[in-house]
Amino acid sequence: MKTIVLLRHGQSAWNAENRFTGWTDVDLTEQGMAEARKAGVLMKEAGLRFDLAFTSYLKRAIKTLNFALDSLGQDYIPVSKSWRLNEKHYGNLQGLNKSETAAKYGEEQVLVWRRSYDIAPPALTEDDPRNPKHDPRYRGVPDADLPRTEALKDTIERLMPCWNDEIVPALRKNSAILVAAHGNSLRGIVKHVKGISDKDIISLNLPTGIPYVFEFDDELNLKKDYFLGDPEEVRKLMEAVANQGRKA
Amino acid sequence: MKTIVLLRHGQSAWNAENRFTGWTDVDLTEQGMAEARKAGVLMKEAGLRFDLAFTSYLKRAIKTLNFALDSLGQDYIPVSKSWRLNEKHYGNLQGLNKSETAAKYGEEQVLVWRRSYDIAPPALTEDDPRNPKHDPRYRGVPDADLPRTEALKDTIERLMPCWNDEIVPALRKNSAILVAAHGNSLRGIVKHVKGISDKDIISLNLPTGIPYVFEFDDELNLKKDYFLGDPEEVRKLMEAVANQGRKA
Repeated sequence: MKTIVLLRHGQSAWNAENRFTGWTDVDLTEQGMAEARKAGVLMKEAGLRFDLAFTSYLKRAIKTLNFALDSLGQDYIPVSKSWRLNEKHYGNLQGLNKSETAAKYGEEQVLVWRRSYDIAPPALTEDDPRNPKHDPRYRGVPDADLPRTEALKDTIERLMPCWNDEIVPALRKNSAILVAAHGNSLRGIVKHVKGISDKDIISLNLPTGIPYVFEFDDELNLKKDYFLGDPEEVRKLMEAVANQGRKA
Repeated sequence: MKTIVLLRHGQSAWNAENRFTGWTDVDLTEQGMAEARKAGVLMKEAGLRFDLAFTSYLKRAIKTLNFALDSLGQDYIPVSKSWRLNEKHYGNLQGLNKSETAAKYGEEQVLVWRRSYDIAPPALTEDDPRNPKHDPRYRGVPDADLPRTEALKDTIERLMPCWNDEIVPALRKNSAILVAAHGNSLRGIVKHVKGISDKDIISLNLPTGIPYVFEFDDELNLKKDYFLGDPEEVRKLMEAVANQGRKA
């Protein structure tokens, strides 16, 4: 049996303020750190022992991984970081409050930008300081690969080379892999692994800080998938994420 | 110009209790975490921007690196972990209090075990639960490479393949590398880079949590080396480490 566990980072400062974050490198809150540590405890209780881990270039995912590995007692495993696991790029919306944006443009437009499969928010201009081409952490990435905005479709397209060329080959050679990343990059993985349609993936709201376990046979056929922890708590967390785009 | 910065981990629970630690995977204390964060601030103030980092398999070094990278604002750089950067293995002394050991065996014998270049403490037996061959983190390491005790000479011998085959090639391709590790593994690097004799390396006491900067030209000839931070504080920290083996 082979296992991949997906872990969505816990609360960040801008989750708490209900702002569009995207590639902005916002830190975890105290609550977010506690979520990450608790995720590590859940994985420890489940007896998971990882061979390696993947995460993004953004500190809310990296630190979620660090805290989870620490409470799991597996700080020592190799960690590979990829910009391809970053959150969906939110273009010019990055930094705006979701409720204010809903009040200004209407809930429907915000839901389109947040949840349509192939409509991206307005792009960043070339000279915008938020443009990733100005950020030294991406200097190793060809400029043509760096987004100025993304629809979920774009996020998944740039994610797939990391899945196909790094994560899947690592799974062939090992038995258990942890991926700590973001709501939309993890949506892309779930969509691919479970064969979810473009339409249905939009309403999948992964809970934060809850390890999502995928078990495969040795030919990498998916056998089952389930969340660790209390099912009622998982349901409430998924609802809370779905409600973030409303005005109230 | 090329730069390598060596960072010795901050206070661990067993440093605080003055016990021989070696390969025991003891956590940082609050003070140790604060030292690591401060090291990150010192490196940020010095304008250091790292391409990648190396650390050991032991959480006190890994977490020192994580906290330092976080306060430096460079969580996203690649990190490579190697068991070869672990602390000197203290054999059967691991877990004993240094002052008690000094009272029992005499200061001189303890100083031999702590500071002689080629005399190792008593070895762990094969069935001792502390023997690294029983620890799953080392299952990828050939048993013949795993120590049961080490003199400083042995630590340096097993360190050198990591230096020669990983760190030096990485430095040829990059401009700045951070190495977060332990008193004795870092001694090995300093000994090699500065050409210090077997006799003199014994009295080099690296301060904890103080970044030690080595600048090289493009042919990797050492041009200068210096500590970041207040020189008087560095001097006091080095003295404090030197005094740990005394009875009082």
